[in-house]
Amino acid sequence: MIRSWSIWISSWGSGTAAVYCARPQHPEAVSPPAPAEERRFSDVDITTLAGRLPGGTVVTDPDILAGYRQDRALDPAAGTPAALVRPVTTEQVSTVVGWAHSNRVPLIPRGAGTGLSGGATAQDGALVVSTERMREITVDQVTRTAITQPGLLNAEVKRAAAEHGLWYPPDPSSFEICSIGGNAATNAGGLCCVKYGVTTDYILGMQVVLADGTAVRLGGPRLKDSAGLSLTKLFVGSEGTLGIITELTLRLLPAQPQQSTVVATFPTLTAATTAIDAVTARLRPSMLEFMDAVAINAVEDEMRMGLDRTAAAMLIARSDAPGEYRTLEAGLIAAACDGATEVFRTEDPEEGEAFCAARRFAIPAVERKGTLLLEDVGVPLPRLGDLVTGVADIAERHQVLISVIAHAGDGNTHPLIVHDPADPDETARAQQAFGAIMDLAVSLGGTITGEHGVGRLKKAWLPAQLGPEAMDLTHRIKQALDPHGILNPGALL
Amino acid sequence: MIRSWSIWISSWGSGTAAVYCARPQHPEAVSPPAPAEERRFSDVDITTLAGRLPGGTVVTDPDILAGYRQDRALDPAAGTPAALVRPVTTEQVSTVVGWAHSNRVPLIPRGAGTGLSGGATAQDGALVVSTERMREITVDQVTRTAITQPGLLNAEVKRAAAEHGLWYPPDPSSFEICSIGGNAATNAGGLCCVKYGVTTDYILGMQVVLADGTAVRLGGPRLKDSAGLSLTKLFVGSEGTLGIITELTLRLLPAQPQQSTVVATFPTLTAATTAIDAVTARLRPSMLEFMDAVAINAVEDEMRMGLDRTAAAMLIARSDAPGEYRTLEAGLIAAACDGATEVFRTEDPEEGEAFCAARRFAIPAVERKGTLLLEDVGVPLPRLGDLVTGVADIAERHQVLISVIAHAGDGNTHPLIVHDPADPDETARAQQAFGAIMDLAVSLGGTITGEHGVGRLKKAWLPAQLGPEAMDLTHRIKQALDPHGILNPGALL
Repeated sequence: MIRSWSIWISSWGSGTAAVYCARPQHPEAVSPPAPAEERRFSDVDITTLAGRLPGGTVVTDPDILAGYRQDRALDPAAGTPAALVRPVTTEQVSTVVGWAHSNRVPLIPRGAGTGLSGGATAQDGALVVSTERMREITVDQVTRTAITQPGLLNAEVKRAAAEHGLWYPPDPSSFEICSIGGNAATNAGGLCCVKYGVTTDYILGMQVVLADGTAVRLGGPRLKDSAGLSLTKLFVGSEGTLGIITELTLRLLPAQPQQSTVVATFPTLTAATTAIDAVTARLRPSMLEFMDAVAINAVEDEMRMGLDRTAAAMLIARSDAPGEYRTLEAGLIAAACDGATEVFRTEDPEEGEAFCAARRFAIPAVERKGTLLLEDVGVPLPRLGDLVTGVADIAERHQVLISVIAHAGDGNTHPLIVHDPADPDETARAQQAFGAIMDLAVSLGGTITGEHGVGRLKKAWLPAQLGPEAMDLTHRIKQALDPHGILNPGALL
Repeated sequence: MIRSWSIWISSWGSGTAAVYCARPQHPEAVSPPAPAEERRFSDVDITTLAGRLPGGTVVTDPDILAGYRQDRALDPAAGTPAALVRPVTTEQVSTVVGWAHSNRVPLIPRGAGTGLSGGATAQDGALVVSTERMREITVDQVTRTAITQPGLLNAEVKRAAAEHGLWYPPDPSSFEICSIGGNAATNAGGLCCVKYGVTTDYILGMQVVLADGTAVRLGGPRLKDSAGLSLTKLFVGSEGTLGIITELTLRLLPAQPQQSTVVATFPTLTAATTAIDAVTARLRPSMLEFMDAVAINAVEDEMRMGLDRTAAAMLIARSDAPGEYRTLEAGLIAAACDGATEVFRTEDPEEGEAFCAARRFAIPAVERKGTLLLEDVGVPLPRLGDLVTGVADIAERHQVLISVIAHAGDGNTHPLIVHDPADPDETARAQQAFGAIMDLAVSLGGTITGEHGVGRLKKAWLPAQLGPEAMDLTHRIKQALDPHGILNPGALL
């Protein structure tokens, strides 16, 4: 599943390793009925669409379609799409969606296919609408905004911004391989969120094609705009169920300053969570990451960098405060780790990067022990310790190895459930643990997904988190915007 | 209209002076029909509601009701509500809305009544639901969040946060007299937005009562949460048309560092806008405010502080960068003002505050010349110069005095239209100018309201900004969430 180790090292920590061998089933899950008006694709003639688009836009080659059945969640329930459509412009997306609307053909919007929750799982007879060829971007330095098509990779957006001395902060772990449109669809997060917030905080406007093919322009390059409902924000995180985003107006910041790095190891989990709380209550680290004992040892097994194998937990924090204050803030972070066995600080970017590499390497290192089910639950920070100990209980109860790494500063954890897909019993226990961790997060006032989205794999757990009132509200909005249910049916709801 | 000068001095710059003597009419405006199912209040018996609430919650005293007919927009089209309801809990709000739903009675949600767009204009027979008695707040230092009821004033939220060493950034000009619930309902802005964003960026969750009386809890104290649609964000800025917010979960930051201040005067408008662009392209000022020649002279008339009366424009910028970097950043801001006649820098907080007071004093100073119509249009920054010169053309064409002050860093301007309400002809010309400025902003790719909201006064201009597709989307969401149209009918739509 991993393209190469260099991607693992250069991308960041979590996000692309999930290999699901069966779609996790909530104990009380009931498969939703197919949309009432859905028609079999064989009833309609794809050439009536292809004829309205430039040659090569509609693809029906089975070998190519096979690569568009699943995203990185590898949902085993994936079907085979009838066609892949790769539009280049908003107008072409409108044509596709309008055609699908008229013919009641389900659409599966797809970015770069790096999703981890099955948001882009195809179904038999559907059209997969890939934004991969929509790759134009313009950056305006004065308004500090970029207008981008959705198919650019996050890293490409960052690079385009950097050419103007600007910075697009959100940094999902998969930033080198995930698309900015997919980031918007899932309201993606990353490492910098503890200081800089998530994707929605950087989206000022968009163009989106609605379920009937109408293209709508929302918001624009204005930091302040109170005119009308906050429609732009509604589409962020809607996972392709309300419309297909064809253009984004992004807010940018000046280039990130250099960072100082603090690494601390702790004899107990409590000592680590105490330090996390002490940091977040007073300081603004640009990164605050957590690794448990399993992750520390897995990394040390592979990298032999002298990490403390006896430590219960390790924190890696950074400060990007401007000027001299960076050193002072790093010192304050170090001082907040007063329960640590050892605290190391460095101003040297390369040395700091080496420690970040240890964190980044945690997932592939743990993966050496078996295939991973990658969780994404979050809790309010004071409950982080309860979550980590609760996950340990779940591991023991289900007899599977689980390592916890976390974007600790915002309470977003990635428990890594190790299992052998060739062992059906262990796989079943891993699946049960996957669900039990979501149940635990919800019971602690948390979320079943901090940054990956609900997709198809987690939707059975969504009602427990949102409650019946918010679910009803969700259904009403879905019904109002996509009455025939052609947009990404089966995802989220 | 002004409660006292001390409020003007201590509150900030703009926002509470609007005195509208007639509701501005868009040339093509058509009055919307009353909701089909609306019933006359006399048909229903208010005692059936009062009996379900604690004594004193429902008020029908005409003398008290008179004070709840209008907000600060003083909309002359305001009717007289049949009753005022002042609930204390979410459950009581549910009771009120559920009763209104059953009886098809329109509800006018109201915060502190400081709105400037007629968002809380009452109508005959409606219930005004005031959140003024919902005043509880708890602050959690570790998660850096506050859970607050909507009736607290913005300044009270800031003070509660400050007691824990924390800071709630959004700072509308009326922060000492406006409520946090009203801020959420309008997605309010302020001075710090150029660096710190607007209200929606600080709202992580809420409890909201829907049109049928159902209370829904959305989001929570988690910086990252990708579970389900972004419903929290949809209600921010919805101006009471989708639900009544009864609780907010706010994201807080560590206390703001001390600020350095830079003041620059410019011989031409172009020199000033060039400096604004140079600052925003590279730096992150914590404030970047603009005053035109009319405002400078009006302030100097009153304060005699030696401002350059010949200047075409003045900028007041601040840096709150941590530590020593603040001085450096202030120097960079000063250097960016290379077309200025004079640049003054100070690290002294009191001296800096004195210059901010000049900006703050601009509205009451201009108001000495006549009653003000206060605009709130925004444009992308590169069009700021075009907006200011276009407003000057409008002033000449309509033969009214207009002064422009602006939150320049985010392109949000407050043209102040001076007129004499006793002169019907001048008042009509002022109204025409008010609309012409919105038309101009839209033609420049801007917004009819940056931070005040649409309410009833600006709704005739909303379709021109949003376009028919976004308006249709807005209507569909309104219909899905409030099918009987009882929530703030006549506002926004």
